Amino acid sequence: MAVYTEVTDEALRAFLADYALGELVAFRGIAEGVENSNYALKTEAGDFILTLYEKRVDPAELPYFLGLMDHMAGRGLACPTPVHGRDGQSLRSLAGRPAAIVTFLPGVWPRRVRPEHCAPLGRALAEMHRAGEGFAVTRPNALGPSGWSPLLDGCRARGDEVQAGLIAELDVALAGILAAWPSEGALPVGHVHADLFPDNVFFLPGEDGKPRVSGLIDFYFACTDLLAYDVAVCLNAWCFEPDYAFNVTKARALLSAYDGVRHFSAAERAALPVLCRGAALRFLLTRLYDWTHTPAGALVTRKDPLEYLRKLRFFAQADSAAALGL
Amino acid sequence: MAVYTEVTDEALRAFLADYALGELVAFRGIAEGVENSNYALKTEAGDFILTLYEKRVDPAELPYFLGLMDHMAGRGLACPTPVHGRDGQSLRSLAGRPAAIVTFLPGVWPRRVRPEHCAPLGRALAEMHRAGEGFAVTRPNALGPSGWSPLLDGCRARGDEVQAGLIAELDVALAGILAAWPSEGALPVGHVHADLFPDNVFFLPGEDGKPRVSGLIDFYFACTDLLAYDVAVCLNAWCFEPDYAFNVTKARALLSAYDGVRHFSAAERAALPVLCRGAALRFLLTRLYDWTHTPAGALVTRKDPLEYLRKLRFFAQADSAAALGL
Repeated sequence: MAVYTEVTDEALRAFLADYALGELVAFRGIAEGVENSNYALKTEAGDFILTLYEKRVDPAELPYFLGLMDHMAGRGLACPTPVHGRDGQSLRSLAGRPAAIVTFLPGVWPRRVRPEHCAPLGRALAEMHRAGEGFAVTRPNALGPSGWSPLLDGCRARGDEVQAGLIAELDVALAGILAAWPSEGALPVGHVHADLFPDNVFFLPGEDGKPRVSGLIDFYFACTDLLAYDVAVCLNAWCFEPDYAFNVTKARALLSAYDGVRHFSAAERAALPVLCRGAALRFLLTRLYDWTHTPAGALVTRKDPLEYLRKLRFFAQADSAAALGL
Repeated sequence: MAVYTEVTDEALRAFLADYALGELVAFRGIAEGVENSNYALKTEAGDFILTLYEKRVDPAELPYFLGLMDHMAGRGLACPTPVHGRDGQSLRSLAGRPAAIVTFLPGVWPRRVRPEHCAPLGRALAEMHRAGEGFAVTRPNALGPSGWSPLLDGCRARGDEVQAGLIAELDVALAGILAAWPSEGALPVGHVHADLFPDNVFFLPGEDGKPRVSGLIDFYFACTDLLAYDVAVCLNAWCFEPDYAFNVTKARALLSAYDGVRHFSAAERAALPVLCRGAALRFLLTRLYDWTHTPAGALVTRKDPLEYLRKLRFFAQADSAAALGL
């Protein structure tokens, strides 16, 4: 739920004067996105999203995110396209925060994932990876393998309050994942989204009535990492049922559609299970960290870390690409 | 911050099939409105707001609210207009909640009120009162004078934790307000908004560049009460500076523009000060109630009740219509 910074109408009008978007028509806070303040902005030129970047975003990284979206949109990907001001800049300042306007994308994110969402998702993910080719700026994944030990250490003091023995289980899991992690250069690297959960993928029905992807949003975890890691994140985020059963039909649709656009190498196929364990651990750790660092009485929604323990355990026993539907 | 109920895309599409609004284009949660879940809905027919009514709203009262908006919009007021389904109904059900679609209004609410907002506001308020004429359904004001004693009783146990002596001061204030409150029939009654704070009034610049009201929203506190009480609410909500100084220039602009559309009677002029004290007490009491009933560690924004103690004290000494700018 995300409006942390209020913008006066005078400041907004002055800000918009730096763009060629015509007069302001409407301006409403959006309840989606957790890190930043997002507004639906309507001007004579159409619909846009105005984002004010809040404290958890490092301003030094914004040129990477905006540049990547620019690059991918320029290569035909349906992602938010930064709108450039009259001076050519897309990263500006508003109400004391870095701010940018991006294009509005039509579509609706699926509150309940159905198997027919998964092939279009897999295709869109592979197209995103292709669209990122040639963007020369890099950004290391702060929430990748090298970040997991410090995260786990940050949870050590109170993690077992969530479940007895949790920290010991995670110590073992982390050691196993790091030991099996692909060595540098073994797998293709590129620009990954790294957070492609259902609320970041918009769909609209195609002419046949089936869902097609109308846009990918929220590139603020994007980084330079193993392309197949992005696939592993999606298997975690899209292919489990509410009872935590892995839905191999969804996985097969996702993987096969992805492979149709960008072929998995043999090394990627072999690494997929450990990448899935790593992705499960990554979301488990950030959720556990938030859980153990949020006051108990707080009314904010804390996401359940144990959901990802169930997924981690599943991937630990489903130890082949075939078991995952590939 | 308001998305309490999630709507699946299947449920949404089934719901929209009952309307003649064409295909779904986009659907985003809105961060405004505290009582209900609000979504910005875009279809082939344009922009709309979809509201799911949450538990604090009594479903039995929805026909009053929707009927009033229909009536006022039909009389030319720029307020959300309920969209009727193919069967003629505007109140329907979605995701287990009462739900309605209303038209989208352009405009921006003023984060910082300037004197030039106040004349258009006063005019729009009087036009709203005129537009409500002839709507035969009534709804008593649950947060009017008869509700203040029980509210104060609900704050009695912990109210003095907010400020020493607060409850005793409010007991005296309430007794004085009730003793001076206009007797039944003394002042004109009609449909009042009862919550016309700046975030419920949209503005756009007119051709002269000055703000004009483009819409009034959020009629879910509307009720049948003294028309001048609505004016008193606006004096509380629009005419104080951040340092709690009463800005008589703003008040004068508001009152004079209102009077230009609907004349204040002599009895209304005489009653205005006590109505202002009553309105200040009403917002003080609901804020105090929320303050004393919200867990201390909770991260929700509790609005400061003492802001309205300052206003109550101001109105207690500014005891003539002239002191208020009328």
